[in-house]
Amino acid sequence: MKKTVALLGSTGSIGRQTLEVIEANKNSFEVFALAAHNEIKILKEQIIKFKPEVAVVSDEKAAKKLSLDLHGFKHTKILSGENSLNEIVANPKVDIAFIAVSGTAGLLPTLAAIKTGKIIALANKETLVVAGHIVMEQAKKFKVPIIPVDSEHSAVFQCLQGKNKLHIKKIILTASGGPFRNYSIEELKRVTPEMALDHPNWSMGKKITVDSATLMNKGLELIEARWLFDIPYNQLEVVIHPQSIIHSMVELIDNSVFSLMSIPDMKIPIQYALTWPERMPISNSEEIDFTKLKTLTFESPNHKLFPCLKLARRAGEEGGLMPVVLNAANEVAVALFLEEKIGFLDIPYLVEKVLDSFDNNSPNPELEEILETDRLIRKKTLQIAEKLF
Amino acid sequence: MKKTVALLGSTGSIGRQTLEVIEANKNSFEVFALAAHNEIKILKEQIIKFKPEVAVVSDEKAAKKLSLDLHGFKHTKILSGENSLNEIVANPKVDIAFIAVSGTAGLLPTLAAIKTGKIIALANKETLVVAGHIVMEQAKKFKVPIIPVDSEHSAVFQCLQGKNKLHIKKIILTASGGPFRNYSIEELKRVTPEMALDHPNWSMGKKITVDSATLMNKGLELIEARWLFDIPYNQLEVVIHPQSIIHSMVELIDNSVFSLMSIPDMKIPIQYALTWPERMPISNSEEIDFTKLKTLTFESPNHKLFPCLKLARRAGEEGGLMPVVLNAANEVAVALFLEEKIGFLDIPYLVEKVLDSFDNNSPNPELEEILETDRLIRKKTLQIAEKLF
Repeated sequence: MKKTVALLGSTGSIGRQTLEVIEANKNSFEVFALAAHNEIKILKEQIIKFKPEVAVVSDEKAAKKLSLDLHGFKHTKILSGENSLNEIVANPKVDIAFIAVSGTAGLLPTLAAIKTGKIIALANKETLVVAGHIVMEQAKKFKVPIIPVDSEHSAVFQCLQGKNKLHIKKIILTASGGPFRNYSIEELKRVTPEMALDHPNWSMGKKITVDSATLMNKGLELIEARWLFDIPYNQLEVVIHPQSIIHSMVELIDNSVFSLMSIPDMKIPIQYALTWPERMPISNSEEIDFTKLKTLTFESPNHKLFPCLKLARRAGEEGGLMPVVLNAANEVAVALFLEEKIGFLDIPYLVEKVLDSFDNNSPNPELEEILETDRLIRKKTLQIAEKLF
Repeated sequence: MKKTVALLGSTGSIGRQTLEVIEANKNSFEVFALAAHNEIKILKEQIIKFKPEVAVVSDEKAAKKLSLDLHGFKHTKILSGENSLNEIVANPKVDIAFIAVSGTAGLLPTLAAIKTGKIIALANKETLVVAGHIVMEQAKKFKVPIIPVDSEHSAVFQCLQGKNKLHIKKIILTASGGPFRNYSIEELKRVTPEMALDHPNWSMGKKITVDSATLMNKGLELIEARWLFDIPYNQLEVVIHPQSIIHSMVELIDNSVFSLMSIPDMKIPIQYALTWPERMPISNSEEIDFTKLKTLTFESPNHKLFPCLKLARRAGEEGGLMPVVLNAANEVAVALFLEEKIGFLDIPYLVEKVLDSFDNNSPNPELEEILETDRLIRKKTLQIAEKLF
C-alpha cells in the first residue's frame, strides 16, 4: 500500500529532492499535499506533476496568483493562511508529515502532525532547536516516531537501531568544516556571501550553506541531537571530517564506534525517512567505491576561528530560551551577511553579543514564550547590529 | 548472575586475552573449564588464578605432568582424551562455550556445545570454513546464537543488529593488507618467517599472522562470513584498510554503509562475545581519538601478489569439500614456510596445486568425510611439496 505524504517546504532544496525520491518510487508513495512559502513557479510545476489534493502557499498574494495560474487544473485545491499547514498535516489521509520548511514555521505543523499520530520526517532544524523539550515530550506522549532527515542525525538514528541507548558513551557528529576550514583570520575577514555559498560537498539552501561555513549549522545540530537522542551535551562531540563520507558516529561503552557512511547525497537520508522502518533500493545515487575514495581524514574544530559551535553549545547547556535566542540572532546575522551589511566574522560576534544581552531566560518555556522571544530577538539583533556596525 | 565460561584454547593469544577480560569483570563471569593442547606452564598459572572445576589437556603426557605439578591443588580436575572437550562444553553449568582452539579441533566441541544449547563464542575459523553448512544448520535447529569473535565478523554481526538481512547489498570485510602490502614480487620471494611474524596492527598467533601476510586469513574469513551471515560470495567483498580501525562494513540496498570502528584490540570483540546481548564498559583499552588518528585509507587487494584471497573465494564458490582442501593445504604450507622449507610465495603456489589436484569433491559432505579429507589432504600436501620443492 502506498504511503501518503504531506510535504511542507516542497520548493526548497530538501523539498525538491524529496519529490525526486517520491517520483522514483511512485508505487510506494503519493503526495497528498505540497506547501511552499512563495515560490509559486516551482510549486506550479510540482502541482502539475504530482497532482496533490491540496497545495498551501503561505504568502496570500502568491496563493491567489497561483490559483489564477492553475485555473482549469481542478485536481488541486489551493489554500493559504497560517492554519492551513496544520490542517493538511493533520488530514486523516496523511501517513507521513515531511517537514522541510525552514525556520520556526516548522514548529506548529510538526506539533499538529504529532497530535494526529503521523510519522514525522523532520528536516527542519529550528523545530528541535527552539522547542525540543516540547516536541519530544509530545512525540513520546502520542507515541509518534520522529525520523530525522539531516544526514548526521539520520546516521545516528540508524546506528542506534538494535542498540541499547544506555550503552551510549558519546555521539560524534561529523562536520565538513565548510569551505573556509583552512583559512586564516585575515582571509576569513574577507569572505563574501558568494564565497560562503560555494559549499564543497553538499548542495543546500543559502542560509544553511552559510551556517555550514560558520559551523553554526553543526552547533544547531548539536542542540537537535541533544533532544532527538535524549543525551546530555557532555556526551556530544563534533569532529571535522572534510570528505563528508562518515555522516556521524556513535561510540558505545566498550569503545566500539558505529558509523553510517555514504556519498554526500541528501536523497539517501530523505528516502530512508520516507521508507522507515523499511528500506528500499535507491535510484540515481552512487554507492561508495572505497578503493577510489582512498582517504578519510579527521581534525578538531578550530574554535578560535569558528566560534559558532561553542556559542551553540553554550546556548544549549544554558537551555530554556537560550537556543531560541541563538537561532533568531543567527538567522538575522546571516541575512545581514548575505545582504553584505556585515562581514563573515561579524556573524558569531553579533550572535554572542545578543546571547550576552539576554537576561530573561526561563527554564521550561512554553510555545507562546518561545515564539514571542523569537520575534523579540530578531528585532533586538537588528538594533544591536545597527549600533555595532 | 555470573555467566559461566568453558574456554577452549586458553593458552593461545585469544584465550589469554579472554581471561584478561574475564579477570577484569570478575563479577560478571566465572571460568568453569579451561582447555589447552600442551602448553601446561601457562595453563598451570591460569588454573591457579581462575580455579576452574575442570582443565583439559589434549596431550596425554602433558596432562599427566600437569596433574603431578598441581598435586595438592584440589580445586581443579585435570582431564585428557579427545572426548573431554565435548564433555566440558556440554556441562549443564556452562553458559558460554568459548571456542578459541586453533584448527579443526574446534569443530566437534562446537557441535557438542550447540546441541546442549550454549551460547557459542566462536574464535575458531576452521569450524565454519570446513563445516559451515553443518554448524549453521545445527545452530538454527537448536536455536543457538553463534557470536563471532574475529574483529571483522563481530563488526558485521553488530552492524546487522536492528537491520533486516534482506536489505544487505554487500558485506565488505576489511584487511590490514599485512606487513608486505607494498612489496614487489622480488621482495616477497625473500620474505622470512621472522619478517612474516611481525604484524603491524594485531598481536596474534603464528599461523594466523602468516595467514594475514598472505591474505589467506581474509580468504578464510570470506568463507566464514558466507556461512555466518548466510550470504552468497558475490555479495562479499574485501578492501584493504591498513590502519585496521574500520573492522568491516555492511552496505544496504540504499547505499548506506554501516561500520564498526575501534582501535585494533581483540579484547573488544572478545568482551562483546562474552557480554552479548548486553554490553559493558571495557577496561585497559583505549578509545579512538579521531583527531589524533587523522587518516583512514583504502586500497584494492593486489591479487597478483597475494593470490590466496582468490584461491579461498574459488574454494568457497566450488563449495563442498573444497574449503576443507584449501584449509588443510594452507595449514601444511604455512608450517613448511615456518620451518623454512618453502618460501613465502610458495604458500599460495602449493595451495593452488593441491586444490587443482583434488577431484573427489562432494556437494554436502558429512562430518566424517570432512575430517577424513582434512587428514588426507595434509598428507597429500606434503607429498606434493616434496615433489615441487
